Amino acid sequence: MLRHTFPVAIIVGIPGVGKTTLIDLSTRMLKEKGYKAVVLNYGDYMLKRLTSIGAVRDRDEIRKLPIRVQVENQSEAAKMMIRRASEELVGSRGVLIVDTHLLIRTPTGYWPGLPLYVAQELKPDTIIVIEASPEEIIARQMRDTARRRVDYRDPKIIEELTRMNRIEALVVASFTGATVNIVENREGEAEKAASEIARILENLIKTHI
Amino acid sequence: MLRHTFPVAIIVGIPGVGKTTLIDLSTRMLKEKGYKAVVLNYGDYMLKRLTSIGAVRDRDEIRKLPIRVQVENQSEAAKMMIRRASEELVGSRGVLIVDTHLLIRTPTGYWPGLPLYVAQELKPDTIIVIEASPEEIIARQMRDTARRRVDYRDPKIIEELTRMNRIEALVVASFTGATVNIVENREGEAEKAASEIARILENLIKTHI
Amino acid sequence: MLRHTFPVAIIVGIPGVGKTTLIDLSTRMLKEKGYKAVVLNYGDYMLKRLTSIGAVRDRDEIRKLPIRVQVENQSEAAKMMIRRASEELVGSRGVLIVDTHLLIRTPTGYWPGLPLYVAQELKPDTIIVIEASPEEIIARQMRDTARRRVDYRDPKIIEELTRMNRIEALVVASFTGATVNIVENREGEAEKAASEIARILENLIKTHI
Repeated sequence: MLRHTFPVAIIVGIPGVGKTTLIDLSTRMLKEKGYKAVVLNYGDYMLKRLTSIGAVRDRDEIRKLPIRVQVENQSEAAKMMIRRASEELVGSRGVLIVDTHLLIRTPTGYWPGLPLYVAQELKPDTIIVIEASPEEIIARQMRDTARRRVDYRDPKIIEELTRMNRIEALVVASFTGATVNIVENREGEAEKAASEIARILENLIKTHI
Repeated sequence: MLRHTFPVAIIVGIPGVGKTTLIDLSTRMLKEKGYKAVVLNYGDYMLKRLTSIGAVRDRDEIRKLPIRVQVENQSEAAKMMIRRASEELVGSRGVLIVDTHLLIRTPTGYWPGLPLYVAQELKPDTIIVIEASPEEIIARQMRDTARRRVDYRDPKIIEELTRMNRIEALVVASFTGATVNIVENREGEAEKAASEIARILENLIKTHI
Repeated sequence: MLRHTFPVAIIVGIPGVGKTTLIDLSTRMLKEKGYKAVVLNYGDYMLKRLTSIGAVRDRDEIRKLPIRVQVENQSEAAKMMIRRASEELVGSRGVLIVDTHLLIRTPTGYWPGLPLYVAQELKPDTIIVIEASPEEIIARQMRDTARRRVDYRDPKIIEELTRMNRIEALVVASFTGATVNIVENREGEAEKAASEIARILENLIKTHI
């Protein structure tokens, strides 16, 4: 069985592309049409899993964990998300949206958020990659002081990371036969980008059996 | 066993690169040298499989199928091709050429034509990616009115898709340890490109045991 | 179990980036800090394996082997390296460094050095990709007459191969959940690049359990 009983969409984007806004807007659009959208954050579930086994106390400690411990718990966190969505979506037409990152910056390099063994648990139907221009990303990071983001201020690094994210989206999609969507989030046109995402998700829900 | 008893070459290229012409020319060259080339079209076999189980009546209906149904039948179609080639190639030195696409445009995004589970059935020895310049692709699409192609008229989209195809070729090759060949099909030099493909295929046949 | 009892780092780079120098420098730095580094060359182990079964007599014959024979022995060579490292690293804190190539030029195209089934044997924790500018690579190849390198003299081909190597690094990393590090080896700054590699390796050793 290469699919779950409900469709799974993975939404990714480097910090500052406006992912959270687009997830909020598009799920609201879906609800207005009578569909249910369960949005789960992979990082939250990693934290849940790792605190439950006593490996960490807070989010900051995750980065410092041996890769081995992270690797072992990635699949468990994925299974927890699938279980949660199965409960929430029972009896209703809907979709599981996994809010995550394809590449995570760690002290020992970029780490794939959805390697083969995780992709095979999540069995995504689609990967939606949200992109924005380096200028817009930097501008958004500057405004977004609440979350103290200083990740990427160099347009060249942002371009590089955007390219790497696209590659990684194809890699992960090829693990499970998921589709890849590149959605451009242009300044002042969030509604348009969100409609595009809602359309993809609606299509997934409608054709899922 | 990571290989079939005969070599398998996957030939891909976005619409308008001149794939059909190059397959015709190169297989003719192979035949002149005494080798057999079985050319099977993946789309044909998907249609065969899906009509046989009553899922669709014609090719246009395939795109509208739930991804789940497509995913489940991709492997079956691959197995049908392998069986067919096994029969056709018995007792002769030859190659199975699978004419297909690495990325298929669907209403929910680009869909990998050869995800892991399909690649593991086909076990390709090589992936030959045919490329052409955006200008040549557009010019060919304009002439090719018979097949009513309006897929890609924007040079930027063609460049993007060419790049994504190359990435996908590396991904699929890495699943099974296949080689990747990029063959440039320049206007007026189809013979040259076909010779290059014939040379690769001959080499595969000769070294296959 | 997705990891070995010791960390595994794969160090790659196209000919002329200065890989050998950086491996020497960084392992020396590690030793000064009390860590052990076992450096094994994949090509050496392929040769060992293939001569042991009587398939070849020298390195040049490997390229001419049927892909099937190479594919079958890639995993065996990987297992031999893991066994060797297990013996050498027993009782000491250290790392296995595999010196290899991500893409190997063969008469039938670029061949992935670390396809899925090999990556799953090696279970790398990190892939360190060493890069240099086309100009520096060409200059180094010119000086390096001892090894008679004439591989890549065209800056465009070097750029293309550099890009393909990065893609392949992400692919392989996604197979096993390894991190990817891009290390720039600038002319006259080998010490700096080696320190960066030593830092990554030390971090891997320290957090490996």
